[in-house]
Amino acid sequence: MNFRMILRIIGYILFLEPVLMLPGAAIAWYDGEPAVVHAYLISMGIILAVGAVFTLIGRNARSGFYAREGLVTTGLSWLIMSALGCLPFYITRQIPSYVDCMFEMVSGFTTTGSSILSNVEGLSRGLLYWRSFSHWVGGMGVLVFLMAIVPLSGKNGGFTLHILRAESPGPSVGKMVPRMKKTALILYLIYTGLTVLDFLLLWIGGMSPFDAFCHAVGTAGTGGFGVKNDSLAGYSPYLQNVTTVFMFLFGVNFSCYYLLLLKRVKDVFHDEELRTYLLIIFASITVISFNIRGLYGSLGETVRHAAFQVGTVMSTTGFATTDFDLWPSLSKGILLILMLGGACAGSTGGGLKIARFLLMLKALRRNIHENLHPAEVRKVTVNGARMDEKVLTNLYGYLIAYVGIMIISFLIISMDGFSIETNISAVFATFNNIGPGFDAVGPTMNYSLFSPLSKCAMIFNMLAGRLEIMPMLVLFSRTTWRRK
Amino acid sequence: MNFRMILRIIGYILFLEPVLMLPGAAIAWYDGEPAVVHAYLISMGIILAVGAVFTLIGRNARSGFYAREGLVTTGLSWLIMSALGCLPFYITRQIPSYVDCMFEMVSGFTTTGSSILSNVEGLSRGLLYWRSFSHWVGGMGVLVFLMAIVPLSGKNGGFTLHILRAESPGPSVGKMVPRMKKTALILYLIYTGLTVLDFLLLWIGGMSPFDAFCHAVGTAGTGGFGVKNDSLAGYSPYLQNVTTVFMFLFGVNFSCYYLLLLKRVKDVFHDEELRTYLLIIFASITVISFNIRGLYGSLGETVRHAAFQVGTVMSTTGFATTDFDLWPSLSKGILLILMLGGACAGSTGGGLKIARFLLMLKALRRNIHENLHPAEVRKVTVNGARMDEKVLTNLYGYLIAYVGIMIISFLIISMDGFSIETNISAVFATFNNIGPGFDAVGPTMNYSLFSPLSKCAMIFNMLAGRLEIMPMLVLFSRTTWRRK
Repeated sequence: MNFRMILRIIGYILFLEPVLMLPGAAIAWYDGEPAVVHAYLISMGIILAVGAVFTLIGRNARSGFYAREGLVTTGLSWLIMSALGCLPFYITRQIPSYVDCMFEMVSGFTTTGSSILSNVEGLSRGLLYWRSFSHWVGGMGVLVFLMAIVPLSGKNGGFTLHILRAESPGPSVGKMVPRMKKTALILYLIYTGLTVLDFLLLWIGGMSPFDAFCHAVGTAGTGGFGVKNDSLAGYSPYLQNVTTVFMFLFGVNFSCYYLLLLKRVKDVFHDEELRTYLLIIFASITVISFNIRGLYGSLGETVRHAAFQVGTVMSTTGFATTDFDLWPSLSKGILLILMLGGACAGSTGGGLKIARFLLMLKALRRNIHENLHPAEVRKVTVNGARMDEKVLTNLYGYLIAYVGIMIISFLIISMDGFSIETNISAVFATFNNIGPGFDAVGPTMNYSLFSPLSKCAMIFNMLAGRLEIMPMLVLFSRTTWRRK
Repeated sequence: MNFRMILRIIGYILFLEPVLMLPGAAIAWYDGEPAVVHAYLISMGIILAVGAVFTLIGRNARSGFYAREGLVTTGLSWLIMSALGCLPFYITRQIPSYVDCMFEMVSGFTTTGSSILSNVEGLSRGLLYWRSFSHWVGGMGVLVFLMAIVPLSGKNGGFTLHILRAESPGPSVGKMVPRMKKTALILYLIYTGLTVLDFLLLWIGGMSPFDAFCHAVGTAGTGGFGVKNDSLAGYSPYLQNVTTVFMFLFGVNFSCYYLLLLKRVKDVFHDEELRTYLLIIFASITVISFNIRGLYGSLGETVRHAAFQVGTVMSTTGFATTDFDLWPSLSKGILLILMLGGACAGSTGGGLKIARFLLMLKALRRNIHENLHPAEVRKVTVNGARMDEKVLTNLYGYLIAYVGIMIISFLIISMDGFSIETNISAVFATFNNIGPGFDAVGPTMNYSLFSPLSKCAMIFNMLAGRLEIMPMLVLFSRTTWRRK
């Protein structure tokens, strides 16, 4: 293991984090809250100091950076970034318990949106900025950002690829352009462009610039932290609808937007995953609207709430406009299943991703065919192209680990004594980076009641969900830490 | 598709079914219930007539019997055997709705034990016999029985293997002896021997011969239909403990008993699945006993209830001595996870089977290793022997189909408007052939409240669960019924 190199990269990230925090301190200064400004300055100082130590240790790192290093770097950097990034909450004592601070920060970076706060409006604006902006930072991946701006490559060839693979969501990393660095840059440009558009539409619609910013970055990262206790329920139908549309947009594979920029419209709408995504959206909204008819005043209002909730769950954002825990069983059942699915691969959304479901169905069909016709050999194809068997093997590994982590964390959380519905949906909601679940963790509730042990399990789940399991498994495996 | 041959085999089974029913008619005659005797005679007549038609059609069947034929034969014979086998319930009007009769019969043959009866004690003893005995028939497989006694092979070589494969539980069929026919015979001898032993121990312990018979065959098939409304709660602790032990015994791979008969004791206790099975039993009983301490009078009573409920869920039997729906969340959570697991492959138990979990964990470890060391190639081994990759591919296919069927049936059942806890556990309990679930389908409740559509979905689930999915998928796939 090339620990020095790993520390060096994490050191760079720790130099970046205070820069991202800076606007929070500025807002607090503008709002006349010296305690918060103070807390930010102390936190930045600590983070910079740790970053300096890490880069010093990593100064003379030997070359040689393989898959294991990429996975450990990713897992460890997200863990340290969260552990230090939550210091402003802790130092201001606006969130008194450190485990709660860590939970909130990890929920932010992993774009989960599960909160331990019962009174969001009680938090200073300077801290609300950082809480929401962490969604944006985590949505596309902080290491991807580093790849895009810092000249790290050079003699370390596979370097960028290993990290991009570990941090990007979906069963396989599509290189848009041959050079990884350029791919990362294009991703971030599309991401920023869409976020700015969302911000402008919300601002024009009557949100304050601060609220519009927080909601735009929260939607972009498909996170879900808002600035109001009732999430988006108090905003106008226009603002809710804009958010619905952007939640769906940020659930699309970003390479589709790249193809659109290249005017390859036909290729975009031939994409199997995108077609399935649109079909599921349409079908779910229709069935739920029919199922909840009568609960709301007009058809328009019914469809608006149905579409918003489908968007919030499928894209794994986690905003709310209504308490879907009060909906009939069928609608709740559909939302629970959509929690599994998530959005498209290569989007900022969490969950299993539709691409994986499509691959699984195709693998099943092949398996049945091969059992009936043992002599024939078939290939699994996606969008007409043959799929490497390695991708399927990794998919199975992912699925097994997914089920295993679900079971273990479900049992840990069960010790707190809440209902089975609460426990199952809490595991789903954190592991798939959604945010709210049902019953005691429903849209109008929060996660503060769980024991510290359960919170730690959910912190692990959120990180494992966002980083697609493997980095966390390798980070916590014995062989990684064994001296050879 | 060799439909004639398929019909011929099903015809043979339909000749067998009335013979198995006969004792029911005798008991009804002894009890002086002419209406029940009558219903039996009519049912037997219909079944024999259908069987005669089938064998007539299949008279000149060409040879050629492949995997697809084996799967369709299995799926279709179970469906027809249930559809006709439930006639005595329907004709006597003791269960007025035909869907309910079919549900009860499928629940019997598949050894599920989910019931639509709220008053079991209201059923005639003649019918109770058939309801319980169907567990025993379905436990080891009726086709396996046919293989063992009827000289069907001859020029159809792969024949027996294809059917045994389709009807036997577990990821791979272990041939105990080179000849399939002899393997089937040995299986049935062990099965009968253990059942007789259970019957004797219950009889000696004070049960009436009829009750002892019904409970012995219900335990042997890991079914769960009892003869009392409160299942086993009213019987003495001795009788409950005997049942606990036999539930665990019937959850063990039968080839272990064969090895014991051969005095290869060492091989038995080196079996990875058996060791895991014993470990899970021990750990679950310990944790649950600790968790429910204080709910019962003494430590002995606590452990007795914990062991019984672990046994009933793990072996997928479904008897009950207490209402575990009232237990704390952790115990309920453990039982819910045990519902997934089930017993050992090659036992009469349902569910995913421990062998599959072991294989999955090993495949995951290999997957992680291969990702970290792309150049190395590893084999998955079980009990020291290399596993064929084909077994793994089939396992993945099974898992995908498992999750898919769970999701679809969950959504169908959700339309009835029960709680999420009810719906999830109803799907689990029927698909894994357990019996009772939680909330509205808890141990003191029954399945009568569901809509006919939901009941049909659960009938499919029970059959798919017992036959390990593939026969049902192939039976209902378009390509099977397409003329070429």
